[in-house]
Amino acid sequence: MTFQSRIKIAIIGAGPVGSLCACFMAEYGYDVTVYESRTDIRHTETTIGRSINMALSERGINALQFINLDNIVIDELAEPMYGRMIHSIDGRKYNILYDILENKCLYSVNRNDLNAVLLTKLEKYQNVKLNFSHKLVDIDFKTTQLTFETLENPQKIVKPDIVIGCDGAYSTVRKNMIRLPMFNYSQMYIDHGYLEINLPSNLNKDILSAHYLHIWPRGTFMLIALPNKDKSWTCTLFMPMDKFPLLLESETENILSFFYKHFKDFTNLIHPKYLIDQVKNGKARTLISIKCNPYHVNDNFLLIGDAAHAIVPFYGQGMNAGFEDCTLLNLLLNEYEHDLNTVIKMFTSRRIHDTEAISDLAFYNYTEMRDLVARKSFLWRKKIDNILQKWFPQTWIPLHSSVSFTTIGYKQCQLNNQCQNKILFLVLILFATMFGIAMYFIVMSTSTTISA
Amino acid sequence: MTFQSRIKIAIIGAGPVGSLCACFMAEYGYDVTVYESRTDIRHTETTIGRSINMALSERGINALQFINLDNIVIDELAEPMYGRMIHSIDGRKYNILYDILENKCLYSVNRNDLNAVLLTKLEKYQNVKLNFSHKLVDIDFKTTQLTFETLENPQKIVKPDIVIGCDGAYSTVRKNMIRLPMFNYSQMYIDHGYLEINLPSNLNKDILSAHYLHIWPRGTFMLIALPNKDKSWTCTLFMPMDKFPLLLESETENILSFFYKHFKDFTNLIHPKYLIDQVKNGKARTLISIKCNPYHVNDNFLLIGDAAHAIVPFYGQGMNAGFEDCTLLNLLLNEYEHDLNTVIKMFTSRRIHDTEAISDLAFYNYTEMRDLVARKSFLWRKKIDNILQKWFPQTWIPLHSSVSFTTIGYKQCQLNNQCQNKILFLVLILFATMFGIAMYFIVMSTSTTISA
Repeated sequence: MTFQSRIKIAIIGAGPVGSLCACFMAEYGYDVTVYESRTDIRHTETTIGRSINMALSERGINALQFINLDNIVIDELAEPMYGRMIHSIDGRKYNILYDILENKCLYSVNRNDLNAVLLTKLEKYQNVKLNFSHKLVDIDFKTTQLTFETLENPQKIVKPDIVIGCDGAYSTVRKNMIRLPMFNYSQMYIDHGYLEINLPSNLNKDILSAHYLHIWPRGTFMLIALPNKDKSWTCTLFMPMDKFPLLLESETENILSFFYKHFKDFTNLIHPKYLIDQVKNGKARTLISIKCNPYHVNDNFLLIGDAAHAIVPFYGQGMNAGFEDCTLLNLLLNEYEHDLNTVIKMFTSRRIHDTEAISDLAFYNYTEMRDLVARKSFLWRKKIDNILQKWFPQTWIPLHSSVSFTTIGYKQCQLNNQCQNKILFLVLILFATMFGIAMYFIVMSTSTTISA
Repeated sequence: MTFQSRIKIAIIGAGPVGSLCACFMAEYGYDVTVYESRTDIRHTETTIGRSINMALSERGINALQFINLDNIVIDELAEPMYGRMIHSIDGRKYNILYDILENKCLYSVNRNDLNAVLLTKLEKYQNVKLNFSHKLVDIDFKTTQLTFETLENPQKIVKPDIVIGCDGAYSTVRKNMIRLPMFNYSQMYIDHGYLEINLPSNLNKDILSAHYLHIWPRGTFMLIALPNKDKSWTCTLFMPMDKFPLLLESETENILSFFYKHFKDFTNLIHPKYLIDQVKNGKARTLISIKCNPYHVNDNFLLIGDAAHAIVPFYGQGMNAGFEDCTLLNLLLNEYEHDLNTVIKMFTSRRIHDTEAISDLAFYNYTEMRDLVARKSFLWRKKIDNILQKWFPQTWIPLHSSVSFTTIGYKQCQLNNQCQNKILFLVLILFATMFGIAMYFIVMSTSTTISA
C-alpha cells in the first residue's frame, strides 16, 4: 500500500476538467472519488442548442498526453481547423491561416464526446469511484466534511482528505468559499449573449469549406460555425443580450430577413423551417467571466478549471486552460514530492497571473473576431506578423500562435505581444522619420538642380 | 386611503440605512414593514471591539434633515472633529484642518447610538411595522415572496410589493441576487485588517486634544482615535492582516514594546493591563469592498447602502453614502411621481458612477492617512489648496472638502480633483519655464556686464 493510496481525494464535478484531474490523481495511485451532480452524460440525450464545441489546442493536447488520450481524441473525435474563414457581408470569402510555418490547427471537439472518452478512461482505474447524481449541498471547511444529496440519501456525508472543485462556472464549491473571509471573487456578465444553431451535414462545400472556423463578422455581432466529426456544423450567433428578444420574438419573415441580410450564404445552406424552429425555440444564453483569489481554502480545498476562472469563449481556451491546471498540478506534485497540502497552497500563486491574462485575452478576442478580422489594418498586421515569424521563427511568435500552439504561460504570451506591438510602433516611427529625411533631401536636391 | 398606503414595502435590515430608508418611505405614507435578523440593538449590550464610530458629514446630515433628526443627532450624539491631528514618530504633533474657510467639521457618532435614535423615530410612524429576529432565508424573485425564519415560525412567508435590501456588507438579499443571470458582482478584501481598542475618558488633553481625529501614520500601518460623546475614545489599529497574528499572539512585553515603539504618546495614556487585555482578547477583522451592477432585480427589488456598495472605511463615507442613497430615492420618487417600479429601475444608472468613485477614493484615502499625511509634499499641496480655496472659494474646493462638506456627486468630486491636479501640474511647468527664462536673462545680462 503506497502512501498515496491512503490519501482520499474527492473531485467535485465529472466534466472534462474533473474527469481529467481524477485520471491524473488516479495515475499516481491516490484514492479518488468523483462526485457529479448530474446523471452520466454518456446515457443522457443532448438537447439541441446546448451541444457546445470546444477548440482543443496545444495546452489541452499536452495534458491529454499524460494519460495517452491525445491521439485517440484527435483521431476519433476531432475535426481540424487550419484557420479562420471570413465571410464578408458582400459575399466575398477569405481565409486567415492559424500557422503559416507548419500549418498547425485547432481541433473542433464536441464537449460531450470528449467528456465521455475521459469518463470511460476514468472507470478503468481500480482506485477511482465514480458517483453520479450526487449533489453537493454543504461543505464544512474546518472538518473537510462534505454533504451530498443523492437519490437514496438526502444527507450523504463523506470526509475526504483533499477536495478539488472542478464543478464549472456555477461551482457549488466556490459558492461555499465566497462566504469565507479573505476570499476575493468577481462575476461579470458581458453585454453579449449567444444562441446556438445546428446545421445538418448535407452542405454545399463551396460555401462552408471543411477544416476552417467560419466567421461572419458584423461589427457589433457575429455568427461562427465549427465543424463536427459527423460533418454537421455547430453554429453560434453572438450579439448584445438586449437585441435577442427582438429577434427571438419576431415574425417568421423578419427572422429570415435578418439572416438573409447579414448572413446570406449561411442562410442559403439551411432549410428555412429548420432555422426558424431553432430560433423560435432557442434561448439566448449569457456569458460570464469569473475571477477568484486565492483558488484554495486552507491547505486541502482547491478550485480548478471554470470553477476557478471561467472565461468568455472567444479564444477557445476555456477547456485548454482547465486542462493546463491539471498539468500544473502534476508539475507541483513532482516539485513538492506529493506533499499535497503544499501543492494546494502553492497552486494560486503559480497560476493566477496566467489565468488572469487569458481572461483578458479572451475578452479582447471577441472584438477581434466580430470586428477587427474584417478590417484592412488587421490583415496588414497579420501579414507583417507572418513575414517576421518566417524570418525569426524562434522569437517572433504572434499572439494567437503562442496562445494556441505553445505552452508558454498565458501571461508571457500577453507580455510578448505587448513587446511586439512596441517594436512595430518604433519601426513605424523609424520608417516615417527616414521617409521624411529622404523626402527632404530629394526636395533639396531638386531645388538645387532647378536653381542651378 | 392614499395610493401609497396600499403599496407594501419590505425593508430588509434595521441598521442605520434600513431605518432611515424606512422613515423616508413612512413619511410618504407607504405601508412599510422592516425585517431585522438580529434582536433590537437598543436592548443589546455592545461587545468591546465592535463599537464602531462613524464620521457623519454633509451627505448624512442632509438626509437626516428630511426627517428632522439632524439637529438632535448633532446635539445629543455627536462629537465634532475639526481636523486631523497627526502624531509623528518623534513625538511631534501638528493638525491639518478640514476646512479653513468656515471651520466645518465631521461628527464622530457611535453607530449604535445613531441606529437607536433612528429606530425610536421609526416606531412613531403608524404605517410602520418593525420586526426583529426575522432572518431572511429565501427569496422568490418571480413572485416577490420572502421567507423568514423567526423565533416562533421557521417559515414565515410574506409577499410585499417592493423589497429594499439594506442588510449591509454581508447582505442576504444580495446573496440571493448573485445567482441570477446578468448580475455583476465583486467582493475584494484588502490586505489590511483592523483591531479596535477602547480608551477610557480620564485622559491627558495635551496629548489627545478633543475635537480632532487623531492619526499615528506609520507608512504601512496606522492607529487612529475618534472621540466619543462620553469623552472616551474609539481607537483602531490598521495593518496588514498577515502581521496581526504576530502581534496578537505575542508575549505581553512584546505587545507593549510594539505600542511604545510606534505609538509612545498613545501608550502612555492607557493602563498597560487594559491595553494588553484588549489586544490579547481582540480579533483582527477584515475589510471588504463590494461592487454590484445593477442594484435592482426586476422592478421591485433594490439594494442600497453597504448591501449595494460596501467600501473601505478610510473616507468615513460608508454611512454617508448609504444615507445619500435614501436622498436619491427621495429625489427619484418625486421625479417619477411615486412610480416605484420606475424609481427602482432608474436607481442604478443614477447612482453607480458616484458609488464607484467613492469606493476608489476610500481606497486612496488609506494611503493618504497612513502614509502621505506624514510627508512634506502632502503638507505643501494642502497649503496650496488652502490658498487657492481662499482666493476662489466657489470654484477651488479641495477633494476632501467636496466629499465631506458638499453634496456634489462623488464622481464629480473625483473629476474636479483630477482637473485641479492637472492645473497645478501645468502651473508648476509654467513656473519652472519662467524661472528658466529669468535665469537665462540674468546670466546673459551678468556676462554682458562682465564683458562690458
